[in-house]
Amino acid sequence: MQKIEHIGIAVKDLKASNILFEKLLGIPSYKEEEVASEGVKTSFFMQGPNKIELLEATKEDSPIAKFIAKKGEGVHHIAFAVDDIVAEITRLKAEGFVVLNEIPKKGADNKLVAFLHPKGTNGTLIELCQEAPTVAE
Amino acid sequence: MQKIEHIGIAVKDLKASNILFEKLLGIPSYKEEEVASEGVKTSFFMQGPNKIELLEATKEDSPIAKFIAKKGEGVHHIAFAVDDIVAEITRLKAEGFVVLNEIPKKGADNKLVAFLHPKGTNGTLIELCQEAPTVAE
Repeated sequence: MQKIEHIGIAVKDLKASNILFEKLLGIPSYKEEEVASEGVKTSFFMQGPNKIELLEATKEDSPIAKFIAKKGEGVHHIAFAVDDIVAEITRLKAEGFVVLNEIPKKGADNKLVAFLHPKGTNGTLIELCQEAPTVAE
Repeated sequence: MQKIEHIGIAVKDLKASNILFEKLLGIPSYKEEEVASEGVKTSFFMQGPNKIELLEATKEDSPIAKFIAKKGEGVHHIAFAVDDIVAEITRLKAEGFVVLNEIPKKGADNKLVAFLHPKGTNGTLIELCQEAPTVAE
């Protein structure tokens, strides 16, 4: 683990929450991005060395929609930057953590991501993320 | 707002969670501290430029006990470092945020702290914290 890359917050209305977080943080969102495979649209705010990601569901059966239905709006995950996501998945599995996707998948913000089951981490969904390699075209 | 100072995670068993987070982060907790006025004992982990604070309730009617009873273990608050907590409270009130304690109070880790009502921040309890001035004796 290097550092906290971002904190993901599940919101019902991304547009309204962008205005709210701009007031809170004193800076506007620098990027919006939809990840269709996850049924989510996101916005990002820089906060010193970290980012805050707001997530709104675009489908009723998406993970964010289910999270809000169960727990309400709020912090959905903490993402840690890692140098080598495959090595980190191997290390954490050996330590007894349950990895939800052992094959890293493409997340927002040009990242390869994997998640740890929150039942094994005090109810906190943990994301590992590694900057995705750029592929020569 | 300067940066995310720490993320606070409510846990049922601080001792067990310290072992868990040491495995997760690859580093041990560097400090434990009880804040009797808040009915909480805490431990801290450095994570690059941020900290992770684990919080276990020491009283049944403490905010952490109530949070876990309602939502289960998980992220309880995000704390932002501020240079001038009084000025930041004034700014955020003017922006329409509800400040839970307008007079900053003594928190863990030698900080003056104030909280924003999560109903006004997408369900996320926001803490403002300023390093407490050291008083000459």
